[in-house]
Amino acid sequence: MTGWVKIVGLGPGADELVTPQVSDALAAASDVIGYTPYVARVAPRAGLTLHPSDNRVELDRARHALTLAAQGHRVAVVSSGDPGVFAMASALFEALEQGPTHWRDLHIEVLPGITAMLAAAARAGAPLGHDFCAINLSDNLKPWALIEKRLRLAVEGDFAMAFYNPRSKSRPEGFARALDLLQQACGDARPVIFARAVSTPEEDIRVVPLPDAQPEMADMRTVVVVGASNTRVIDGGQRPIVYTPRSVLS
Amino acid sequence: MTGWVKIVGLGPGADELVTPQVSDALAAASDVIGYTPYVARVAPRAGLTLHPSDNRVELDRARHALTLAAQGHRVAVVSSGDPGVFAMASALFEALEQGPTHWRDLHIEVLPGITAMLAAAARAGAPLGHDFCAINLSDNLKPWALIEKRLRLAVEGDFAMAFYNPRSKSRPEGFARALDLLQQACGDARPVIFARAVSTPEEDIRVVPLPDAQPEMADMRTVVVVGASNTRVIDGGQRPIVYTPRSVLS
Repeated sequence: MTGWVKIVGLGPGADELVTPQVSDALAAASDVIGYTPYVARVAPRAGLTLHPSDNRVELDRARHALTLAAQGHRVAVVSSGDPGVFAMASALFEALEQGPTHWRDLHIEVLPGITAMLAAAARAGAPLGHDFCAINLSDNLKPWALIEKRLRLAVEGDFAMAFYNPRSKSRPEGFARALDLLQQACGDARPVIFARAVSTPEEDIRVVPLPDAQPEMADMRTVVVVGASNTRVIDGGQRPIVYTPRSVLS
Repeated sequence: MTGWVKIVGLGPGADELVTPQVSDALAAASDVIGYTPYVARVAPRAGLTLHPSDNRVELDRARHALTLAAQGHRVAVVSSGDPGVFAMASALFEALEQGPTHWRDLHIEVLPGITAMLAAAARAGAPLGHDFCAINLSDNLKPWALIEKRLRLAVEGDFAMAFYNPRSKSRPEGFARALDLLQQACGDARPVIFARAVSTPEEDIRVVPLPDAQPEMADMRTVVVVGASNTRVIDGGQRPIVYTPRSVLS
């Protein structure tokens, strides 16, 4: 039996947003490894071993996946959204690079998924319709000063911005600082989208002008999208539509 | 009969990367509108009218979709990748904002898809595993000076970068200027990924150090991903793996 590792993206939550490629990989797997709430999205079946684990043990999880694959297991490593965006793919390749060289002969694939910012943008309209940045606001793995620098440069470049992991329970003050910086640096009322648990029964989409944005509007299940200076809001209909035009006039 | 418009993402090419949500919308549609090569990806069937159109007529196409929906048609507007990333969603909302107010009562949804940079990143490893920017290199709809400014700021912020529409037949010189700017500004040998026609039979993935990157390596079917300064390449196995680590040391 030939083992493999497929690092798969489960999308933001709804089954209808999981690609057939990922569904097929889960159906063929012998083992599923990942953060407990993501593993819980995979239906148990005979012949499938589920290995849920806690947050912040990404490297252990990656080594576990590679070790099992080297023993002939067919391992699906599951991430929410897309595995390549602030998720398990980088951790797996870090473990691969640090690990025994025979791991490099394993069959390893990354199967993309609908990442949170794309699902959130779709529900709100098209706020990422022009140039944009994606920034992880967690300072677990990088200095806060670098986050601030990137925020300032993103504003200077007039990118739309998508923020992942805006606000953890353990470090809630970071997002308040980020919002404060953006309110000062942008100096306008561009729309901010707080998109929580998109495509799940708990979905909540809120659109507010930047000066009214409050840190408490986000938690770790929220992706936050901040418009560019020319991002527009269309009122009327069921709810406001936020979109960034395709063109920037010179 | 109640009309609707669903702006759907077909993903980068392979059927196995189309979400079930999008497949269901296409199965329920009475009309499909889009750029000819994307409409060609939808199987004809009784009861479905295909409306292929040329490139650069996005607003006409959007008005057509809204007009048909207002007459009760069930209209799928198709984009490659994700409709919210340099695709039809923004054009549709531009047309909506400029059009008759009764259009705002229509049922309009954006259904996300796997955008080219995520598919390309997955095939290469995890180059977008940390903060990144997505920039449309076409200067059809924005001044070239703004593209250069964003490139410089993205380098200064040490973002990984994904470039859409790098090189058109009509304006091939822009990408040469962009590469030249990056080679000067980065001053290192970080990896560049040229990912063409990902997930199709014509797929071609090429990884080169930035100093070796040539404009001719890209065309309009290519998405280009440039690593951050700490992006790594793992050799060995079938082909090089490119990934950006999750952490940045202070």
